[in-house]
Amino acid sequence: MIYTFVAYVENKPGVLNRVASLFRRRAYNIDSLAVGTTHDDRVSRMTIQVEAKDDDAAKRISANMYKMVDILYVEDVTHKDNVIREMLMIKVSTDNTTRTEIIQIADIFTAEIIDAGIDAMTLLITGTQGKCNRMINMLKQYGIVEMQRTGAVAMLRDSEGVPEGFAQVMTEMGIH
Amino acid sequence: MIYTFVAYVENKPGVLNRVASLFRRRAYNIDSLAVGTTHDDRVSRMTIQVEAKDDDAAKRISANMYKMVDILYVEDVTHKDNVIREMLMIKVSTDNTTRTEIIQIADIFTAEIIDAGIDAMTLLITGTQGKCNRMINMLKQYGIVEMQRTGAVAMLRDSEGVPEGFAQVMTEMGIH
Repeated sequence: MIYTFVAYVENKPGVLNRVASLFRRRAYNIDSLAVGTTHDDRVSRMTIQVEAKDDDAAKRISANMYKMVDILYVEDVTHKDNVIREMLMIKVSTDNTTRTEIIQIADIFTAEIIDAGIDAMTLLITGTQGKCNRMINMLKQYGIVEMQRTGAVAMLRDSEGVPEGFAQVMTEMGIH
Repeated sequence: MIYTFVAYVENKPGVLNRVASLFRRRAYNIDSLAVGTTHDDRVSRMTIQVEAKDDDAAKRISANMYKMVDILYVEDVTHKDNVIREMLMIKVSTDNTTRTEIIQIADIFTAEIIDAGIDAMTLLITGTQGKCNRMINMLKQYGIVEMQRTGAVAMLRDSEGVPEGFAQVMTEMGIH
């Protein structure tokens, strides 16, 4: 099963390296990873999706991440009420005959056409992994020239925002 | 100056680790990184943005990446005709008075409202880094509860798709 973790880390060179090393050492295969700065430059936020056997295995992943010095907060959001979205950029072969069909598919999935040339079109879509997969499946017949997904970003629906435990860490760091 | 590289790598555990280590060892600070599978499970595609002094420094980064065994192809797309997009998920404080204003801002930036609660709303936007920054700036006044960007994804506008050199590597690997 795929588990989704949200982690707050100090924005220092080498943090990505240490997280990647940890997962490598423990032989966890990262299914998806998104890293980006938050509204505070000192803090980065990561969403990591990892295959784990069960909840116990997931707990061990959290615990191992916590041992890392630059990790400020980790939360397993898998079983919580969350929104998860990824972005997919995909370039598809086209010609004057198939262009209309591809535009229709873009409409169905509310994808944005961000580039068009004589023999190719580039679409951009955000959605769940399933939605992106379904669009890829429909576009395959025309020939996929190139594609890239980003890692998924997860956020709790909870309007409280960052969890209480982390809010405290932020306060201690003088952030906010 | 920020340089943008597109790299194709073998989809094996540890590749992310080796890329992160390389940048760490050389003391390059990764500004943004997006990794995802392509339409071939054996190959992942990365877009990496790195601060480099000049084109010569950028060439050295390419050369160093090429030395890594799992790297199939690297291209510096900085000075080429490309599309670059990132995704931003942002949760903003709101109440019955400010909700309309936030919806207006979402409309201006064609952001999608993916979640709404009594005291917070979550918006999703894709665009250039500049566009995302401008939306963040407008939303700051309401209070940002939580936000995360993905790494940027870059693609050449060239309808030829994957560069000739890489197409050859793919053919040799029996991909396509």
